[in-house]
Amino acid sequence: MIPLLGGETRVVNIGLELFAETLATLRLPVVHVEWAPPAGADPRLARLLERLDERREAIEQANAEAFARLVNGEPVLMDCRPAREALGLPERTVLHAGPPLEWGRMCEPVRAALLCAIRYEGWAADDAAATRLVECHEVRLEPCHQWQAVGPMTGIVTASMPVFVVENRAYGNRAYATINEGLGKVLRFGANDETVVARLRWLAEEAGPLLSVALKASGGIQLRPLMAQALRMGDEMHQRNIAASALLARVLMPHLARAAENAGLLARVAEFMGSNDQFFLNIAMAAGKAMADPAGGIEHSTLVTAMARNGTEFGIRVSGLGDRWFTAPVNTPAGLYFPGFGPDDANPDMGDSAIVETIGLGGGAMAASPAVARFVGAGGVAEALEATEEMREICLGEHPHFRIPALDERGTPAGIDLRRVIETGITPLINTGIAGRTAGPGQIGAGIVRAPLACFERAREAFPP
Amino acid sequence: MIPLLGGETRVVNIGLELFAETLATLRLPVVHVEWAPPAGADPRLARLLERLDERREAIEQANAEAFARLVNGEPVLMDCRPAREALGLPERTVLHAGPPLEWGRMCEPVRAALLCAIRYEGWAADDAAATRLVECHEVRLEPCHQWQAVGPMTGIVTASMPVFVVENRAYGNRAYATINEGLGKVLRFGANDETVVARLRWLAEEAGPLLSVALKASGGIQLRPLMAQALRMGDEMHQRNIAASALLARVLMPHLARAAENAGLLARVAEFMGSNDQFFLNIAMAAGKAMADPAGGIEHSTLVTAMARNGTEFGIRVSGLGDRWFTAPVNTPAGLYFPGFGPDDANPDMGDSAIVETIGLGGGAMAASPAVARFVGAGGVAEALEATEEMREICLGEHPHFRIPALDERGTPAGIDLRRVIETGITPLINTGIAGRTAGPGQIGAGIVRAPLACFERAREAFPP
Repeated sequence: MIPLLGGETRVVNIGLELFAETLATLRLPVVHVEWAPPAGADPRLARLLERLDERREAIEQANAEAFARLVNGEPVLMDCRPAREALGLPERTVLHAGPPLEWGRMCEPVRAALLCAIRYEGWAADDAAATRLVECHEVRLEPCHQWQAVGPMTGIVTASMPVFVVENRAYGNRAYATINEGLGKVLRFGANDETVVARLRWLAEEAGPLLSVALKASGGIQLRPLMAQALRMGDEMHQRNIAASALLARVLMPHLARAAENAGLLARVAEFMGSNDQFFLNIAMAAGKAMADPAGGIEHSTLVTAMARNGTEFGIRVSGLGDRWFTAPVNTPAGLYFPGFGPDDANPDMGDSAIVETIGLGGGAMAASPAVARFVGAGGVAEALEATEEMREICLGEHPHFRIPALDERGTPAGIDLRRVIETGITPLINTGIAGRTAGPGQIGAGIVRAPLACFERAREAFPP
Repeated sequence: MIPLLGGETRVVNIGLELFAETLATLRLPVVHVEWAPPAGADPRLARLLERLDERREAIEQANAEAFARLVNGEPVLMDCRPAREALGLPERTVLHAGPPLEWGRMCEPVRAALLCAIRYEGWAADDAAATRLVECHEVRLEPCHQWQAVGPMTGIVTASMPVFVVENRAYGNRAYATINEGLGKVLRFGANDETVVARLRWLAEEAGPLLSVALKASGGIQLRPLMAQALRMGDEMHQRNIAASALLARVLMPHLARAAENAGLLARVAEFMGSNDQFFLNIAMAAGKAMADPAGGIEHSTLVTAMARNGTEFGIRVSGLGDRWFTAPVNTPAGLYFPGFGPDDANPDMGDSAIVETIGLGGGAMAASPAVARFVGAGGVAEALEATEEMREICLGEHPHFRIPALDERGTPAGIDLRRVIETGITPLINTGIAGRTAGPGQIGAGIVRAPLACFERAREAFPP
C-alpha cells in the first residue's frame, strides 16, 4: 500500500456519493463523478437498451427527422367551431383525456364531468339516466387523442362544444381543443352542477360563434411566435399562461370588434377572456398536438409523441410505435393546495395537457418561469433551473424557437427520448393542476408530477428486438 | 522582515486590484476587498459628505419617509383628456421634456417637434412662422414636470393633445402623459411631417375620446399591481413594455367595447393599441411621476425625486431641495442602432422617461428583463444582474411591490440617494431610446446612458452646510 498512498492522495469517486463525502470530511481532495448504472441496473432493461444500441444509426436518423418535425411545426389558430363540425364528432360520443379507459375504471371527477356533458347535450335528464346510457354503451367513450383533440384535466368534449381549430401549416394537419372555461366550478375539474352547464351553453351560443367569425376574419393567428414570446414573458404555458392569454386577447380584439353584432356581446366575451389567465392553455395544447402529430409514425424513432392521463392511467405514444398507448398507473401530483385542502383530497393526475411537456414547454421550461416553480411548490429560481437542466438529460435537443432569456437565449429541452428515460431513470416532469378526488370542489391546488417509468419500459419492450 | 514573512503569507488587499492580481499570479493566498476613497478622493466633496454625516439622523429619518412615499403610491389610470382640460394648459404654451431650456440651446429634434406641435395646433402655418412665434416669445416653452406631466423623448405637449390622467390614491396627487404614438415617424423622436400631424389629430379626435369614456366607465385601472405583474413578465417598463401594454389592453377592452359608438372606431383603437409594444411606456411614466411627486419636499431628504433630459442638459430634483433643478450637460446613449445608423448619428439623451428609473424600474430593474439588456446592447443575463446589483449601491432600499422572480422575489433597487451617488461615483443607469440628431429619421436605436455626476455634485452643494 505504501507506493499507492505514500504520496499525496487524490481521489476520483464514481457513483455512490457516500465515499466522496467521507473523504471530503477528512479533507482529502476528491472529485466526484455522478454516475449510475444504466436502466437502474435492471439487467433485462439494460439488455434491451443494448439491443437498441445495435440499431443506433437508424434510430438516430429517425429521431433527427422526428425532432425536426416536432420543433418546426407552424401552428395557426384558424377557427372555433362545434366539435360536430370541426371533428365530425357524432352524437352520443364523449371524448375524455388520456389513454382509453372503460367507465368502470374511471375516477370520480372524470365520471362526474362525463355525466354533466351528457346532461348538457340533453341525451339524459339527470345523472342516473346518464349513467345508464354509459353502462348500456348507448354513449360511446373515446380518448380525445383519437380525434386529434386534446382536453385539459377530465378533457370532456361532446358534439355541440365549440373547439379551437389549429392547423400546422408546415405539415398540413389539424388539432382541436375546447375553450378554457376559466376558474371555479368547471367541467374540466369534475364539477357538474347547473352553473357548469350554463357556462358551457354560453360558450357554445355566444363565445364560440363570435370567436369563429373573428378568427376567420383574422386569416389565422400564428401561434409559434406568440408562444415563443409568451415563454420570454414567463409563461411555461402549462400552469402559467397569462402572457400568452393577454397577447392573444390583444391581437384578437380588432377582429372581435368587427365581428361582434353588438357591444354587449363583445364586452362579455372580452371580459371572459380578460378574466382568465389560463385562457390560452387549451390553445397551447391544441398547438402542441398539432406540432407533435407529424413527429409520429417514423420507423425506429424513440421520440415520445404524446403523454396523457385519465386520472387512472398515464399513457405515452412513441413515434416508431405509431398510435399505440403504453400505460401505467398514474401518479398523484404533489404541490400547493388551496385553503382547506391537502394531499389526501387530491385526485391522481388527469388531462391531455402534458402535450405541452411533449413539445418542450411546461415542466421542462420551468427555468423560464420561476414564478411557476413557486406556484407549484417546486421552490424558487435554483429549483426551476435544475428542473430544466434535468429534462435536458432525457431530451433529444434544444428547441430552436422556444428560447429562455434567463439562460441567455438557450432553447428549452425538447423531444423526450424513450432511450434516455430508461437509461437514466429520469421521467418527464409535468406541471399540473390538482383536482379534488370527489366531484364537488373542482380544482384544489397546483403541483408537479412525474410520468411513471413503467410506461416507458413497456414501450421499449414493444420495439422490435 | 523575517518575523513577518517567515511564516505562511496571507494577504488582505484593499483598493487597487493590481497588487492582488500580482500576488495571485505568484500563487500567494490573497483576499481582495473592493474599496475606493469616497467621492473619487475629491477633498471638497468628501468634506461635503462628511458634513451631511453630521446630520445623519435627520437625513435618514427624512429619507425613510421619502422612500415610503415613493414606493407606496397607488397610481390609478383615471381618464384621458385634452391637456387644456386635464392640466389647464393654456393656448400658445408648449411643454417639453427635461429641465427648463431656452429655444437657443435646444437640439434639433426638440426644435423640430416643437415647431410641428405649433403647426398641429394651428398657431402657425409653417415652420418659419412657428419659429418666429417662439423667437418673439409669443409661444411659451415650459418643462412638462412643471405641470405634473412627463413626456418621452422630446416630450412635447400642447393644449389639444389628449393626456392620460393618473391619480395617486394614496396621496391624492395627479400626473399626466400623452398617448404613446407608436413607432416610425413620431413627434417624440423629432419627426415633423404631415403624417405626424395626422396621427396627432387621430389621437385627439378618435383614440383620446374613446379611451376617456372607457376609463371613466372602468372606475380607474389600478396601475401598481399591473406594473408589478408586467415586471414579473420581463418588462423593465422603459425599453420593454409589451407585457404591460397587453395586460392593459386586455383589461380595457370590455370598457372600450361598451364605450365605442361603432365597431370600426373600436377596431381602429384596438389595432393601434395592439400594434404598439411601447403603448404602456407613457402610462408607466405618468404613474412614475404620480408616485415620485409625494416623495418631494421633505426637509433633509437626499432622495432623488426626478431625473429628466432635454437633449442638451440632464436635470435632477432632490426631495429636500424641492422643485429646483440641478443640471449638467447630458450624455449621449451607447447601444445598438437600426440598420444604416451609428453612434455619430445619435442625439444626446432626451426625455422625462427617466422617471421610470427614479421609481425603481428601467435600468435598475434590468435583472427582470435580460431581453432588454440584449436589446440595448448591454449584454446578457450576467450583465443584467450586474446592472441591478450596481444600482443597489446607490439606492435606499428594495421596492416592496416591484419584485423580480429571477432574484427569488427580491425587490428592485429603489430610491436613489444623492449621498451614495457622490460617495461611490456610481450614477443612475438609464435604458433609453436613441433619437437621430437631425429632425428627419426619428428613432435610430436603443441603448443605455448614465446620468452625469455633476448634477448630483451641484445638488449636494445646494444642501445647507
